[in-house]
Amino acid sequence: MIKEFLQVLDSEIDRMEQGKQPVELYEPIQYLMALGGKRIRPVMCLMAYSLFRDDWKTQVKPALSIEVFHNFTLMHDDIMDKAPLRRGKQTVHEKWNDNIAILSGDVMLVEAYQFLNQIEGVSLAQFQHILERFSWTAAEVCEGQQWDMNFEERKDVQIDEYIEMIRLKTSVLLGFSMEMGGLLAQVDQGIAQQLYQIGEFVGLGFQLKDDLLDVYGDPEKFGKQVGGDILANKKTYLLIRALELSQGEIRDRLTYWINQKQVDAVEKVKAVTEIYTQLGLKEEVGLQIQSYFDRAFAGMEALPLPQEKKNTLLSFMAGLVDREV
Amino acid sequence: MIKEFLQVLDSEIDRMEQGKQPVELYEPIQYLMALGGKRIRPVMCLMAYSLFRDDWKTQVKPALSIEVFHNFTLMHDDIMDKAPLRRGKQTVHEKWNDNIAILSGDVMLVEAYQFLNQIEGVSLAQFQHILERFSWTAAEVCEGQQWDMNFEERKDVQIDEYIEMIRLKTSVLLGFSMEMGGLLAQVDQGIAQQLYQIGEFVGLGFQLKDDLLDVYGDPEKFGKQVGGDILANKKTYLLIRALELSQGEIRDRLTYWINQKQVDAVEKVKAVTEIYTQLGLKEEVGLQIQSYFDRAFAGMEALPLPQEKKNTLLSFMAGLVDREV
Repeated sequence: MIKEFLQVLDSEIDRMEQGKQPVELYEPIQYLMALGGKRIRPVMCLMAYSLFRDDWKTQVKPALSIEVFHNFTLMHDDIMDKAPLRRGKQTVHEKWNDNIAILSGDVMLVEAYQFLNQIEGVSLAQFQHILERFSWTAAEVCEGQQWDMNFEERKDVQIDEYIEMIRLKTSVLLGFSMEMGGLLAQVDQGIAQQLYQIGEFVGLGFQLKDDLLDVYGDPEKFGKQVGGDILANKKTYLLIRALELSQGEIRDRLTYWINQKQVDAVEKVKAVTEIYTQLGLKEEVGLQIQSYFDRAFAGMEALPLPQEKKNTLLSFMAGLVDREV
Repeated sequence: MIKEFLQVLDSEIDRMEQGKQPVELYEPIQYLMALGGKRIRPVMCLMAYSLFRDDWKTQVKPALSIEVFHNFTLMHDDIMDKAPLRRGKQTVHEKWNDNIAILSGDVMLVEAYQFLNQIEGVSLAQFQHILERFSWTAAEVCEGQQWDMNFEERKDVQIDEYIEMIRLKTSVLLGFSMEMGGLLAQVDQGIAQQLYQIGEFVGLGFQLKDDLLDVYGDPEKFGKQVGGDILANKKTYLLIRALELSQGEIRDRLTYWINQKQVDAVEKVKAVTEIYTQLGLKEEVGLQIQSYFDRAFAGMEALPLPQEKKNTLLSFMAGLVDREV
């Protein structure tokens, strides 16, 4: 069933307008969208819709607005973060240049709205409500990216600030994906908010899982360099908590590795991972992830729908908990 | 009358949400919007609306979507063009940095859609048509900017390519401003297209006037450095035509000044201006500008409306023809 959602989405992505001029503007869009990814957001949107209605294939274009928006944020974030690789391939600003990545990204944001504009069968008020929620969420995602950049300049980031940052940068869009599925099915306000919260909790668990996999992921399966966050001194949940918790000799080791300019990458990743493990952070983050997903599952439980309607989404969510990639 | 449009628009701009967090994201928006400018686009939108209906004050927020979008393009274009100044003040990427200008710009594009979303009193189909036309135009403006950047790398740009570039980069948004005024007043498709064409011709005349003023503007009135395009070897109508027309000794002088690395700015501007004048380009561009505005005025003439309805817009357009700033 999940496969079917993915197939329909990917074939619609393949059909996105091609060959438009100037090519410098449109090739990067095609390139980035074709790099793949899990398409989690449109899948969650369509699955949320499917809780209430069966004709989810009518909603593929609106659902894709979220995927196009997400990829737009990747294109621009990669410029800001000076990231060389995305999904194992050159980022757009590396393959072309910064200016092209800025402008192509701008067009992608416009295209996201064009997909959203293909919503049918709702009232003007319903449509404008979806549009307002989309724009609100989009602005929040930008806010999250700005906080993330600000945090990289600061030494005193607190864990609750970090959680708020990932909520904005990642979770609100997963929340909105679920909410939009409901709004397209014309559910009432209360249900839409429940869906949003489920998605938001999934998003928080999902992002912390990312932090965890970066350190404890299986290099064979992970697909990108394990320890990338450690090498970049990226302020993840693990590093922020390690800075909060560590004392004495462990603190000295942590400080040493953070400040060391010329390091052997393998050694640093090994050493910092050991520190995290000694501080019990593998378990702590694991529990946090579980706690967020528990709340998401409780939200699903509370939805006034027959169990069999919920199974597809529940098994998709379970897959996110267990993911190794 | 024009003054009243401007006052209402500016007071609405002042009311745009302030003090939102993180400040790095929202201060640049406020800063750029407060730099002023002629607000030509929303004024034209409201004036076009006023051709058909009197309650133009109900349409201020939708009209502002175009101004916010225009300022978003300025913020991003200035990064790409590495422009230090905008309206005599530091550009956003200079005052803050590139990343902040990218991300603030992104939020501005979202805000443009939020203003658009405040359209009232139309049907879903009418609203979605406006949204589609807005997005289409937005993508075209990005295309224009990409062509503009491509042209800077090329030596063989033809005048018709240049006209198509400025049509995309500048004119389509003025066209859409007029069209949207009509669509908000729920005119029929034919009238909407007539309005679009009027705005498009105004836009072409307006941009060529810019090219002309950069060279022949009165330094006392112009507000920015006369000859800026000449110093940057910017491929304007004048330079492209000069490269097409010049031969022999004049051509040698032109080539000399284009390729000279270390030049006295005043000398170069004086010399190239002389070349343009010798080639008769001041007159030629003047005639082109007149021709575009003539077509815009003919379009106004053809609108099936009583003359007194048209006077405000006509006098506004006449002001654009005669402008010295």
